[in-house]
Amino acid sequence: MTAQSRSDSPLLVAFDADDTLWHNERIFTDTQARFRELLRRHCDESVIEQRLYDTEIRNLGHYGYGVKAFTLSMVETAIDLTDGAITGGDVDAILDMGREMLNAPVELLDGVSEVIPMLAERYRLMVITKGDLLDQETKVARSGLGDHFDFVEVVSRKDRGAYERVLNAHGAHPVEFVMVGNSLRSDVLPVAEMGGVAVHIPYHTTWAHEQVRDGTTEALPYTRLERISEVPGFLAGLANGSP
Amino acid sequence: MTAQSRSDSPLLVAFDADDTLWHNERIFTDTQARFRELLRRHCDESVIEQRLYDTEIRNLGHYGYGVKAFTLSMVETAIDLTDGAITGGDVDAILDMGREMLNAPVELLDGVSEVIPMLAERYRLMVITKGDLLDQETKVARSGLGDHFDFVEVVSRKDRGAYERVLNAHGAHPVEFVMVGNSLRSDVLPVAEMGGVAVHIPYHTTWAHEQVRDGTTEALPYTRLERISEVPGFLAGLANGSP
Repeated sequence: MTAQSRSDSPLLVAFDADDTLWHNERIFTDTQARFRELLRRHCDESVIEQRLYDTEIRNLGHYGYGVKAFTLSMVETAIDLTDGAITGGDVDAILDMGREMLNAPVELLDGVSEVIPMLAERYRLMVITKGDLLDQETKVARSGLGDHFDFVEVVSRKDRGAYERVLNAHGAHPVEFVMVGNSLRSDVLPVAEMGGVAVHIPYHTTWAHEQVRDGTTEALPYTRLERISEVPGFLAGLANGSP
Repeated sequence: MTAQSRSDSPLLVAFDADDTLWHNERIFTDTQARFRELLRRHCDESVIEQRLYDTEIRNLGHYGYGVKAFTLSMVETAIDLTDGAITGGDVDAILDMGREMLNAPVELLDGVSEVIPMLAERYRLMVITKGDLLDQETKVARSGLGDHFDFVEVVSRKDRGAYERVLNAHGAHPVEFVMVGNSLRSDVLPVAEMGGVAVHIPYHTTWAHEQVRDGTTEALPYTRLERISEVPGFLAGLANGSP
């Protein structure tokens, strides 16, 4: 098989960003641990985690996803859990946690720095991610991978309609669209439902909100790979009609 | 002159959203007044406004634009100005102010509800705005105008590069691109610089950060209109080569 040039392939290959290209969930997990540490003299640690999660979910409709939303939800939870007794200094510490998350180093997952430049030689690549617009754009830039992606789309949610809008804007058809990501709920199921090619690469931890109940996925076809280094072979197989 | 159908015109006509299609600055101004009211027992009112502005500008690189960024900056300023003595209840009041901003009714500027549907019959229309992704998308939806726009682009900043990326993604050329907005700095100058058609419709108040020094605009061509109802005539003139 000869190598394809980018223009030969009709495939548009999109990657989720957080926990697909670089580590992200552990930054949230670490911050949650610091948040529990800050509040544990006020209440039980197990309560803190549950209340923070409840606040995040309640605020999703107002704030959407991302670090700014998470920071605001931490402040709100701290006020709730202390009945307003939280000090200005502790609220300031929470704001600092948020800013540290925004400035955390972008640490690529294994294989990403080799695979993405290689794929960029053959296919049109894009990033489709949710979260804060500026935060996600600067993470792409800081990752050093920005030049390999033709487009970066930050969306407010990842449902079938969002993927259809992205494909429509880029003049792509679902059958020529491949989405690679770690979230069954956000990256895999809506793409499979629309008739695209969905590839699931699990990350070792998943935010509760992104988890999918057993049975939900059975009717929809998708491919599970263990690591990103298996993606080039999978795409070559697709191109040869033998995925 | 016969009416053109949308597909006859090569023009892509983009509108800024806040203070171009609907009122926005006054929501910030009202909230700032409530914020000064909350803090005036701690310090002088004139100091409050300046410190909040300084905090917003210092945080732009971390947070970008929008209501969530503004809310976080209000919390930070309140802690600073009270040397940490702000109460949890007052921080909670600030969070409420932020949520009220996100849920504020979308009040269209005069003429918008007539002009946008009319233009949508003739031209491809889009919204290009900065701010929070989810907030801007829901405002477009709540405005009742969503169906008239072919695309809604929320960008993290509005500089020449951002406009070039939008045009590139939509396969449009600068000479066929019209941008209408209230901010010289964000809507007019970068578009004029790139060779697009820039239309300035001033709003009666402008956030200090969006203000442009005298003299900066002299070298770049743009058109100033007083209200959105003048836009259809201007575009018809453009199409006939006599703007």
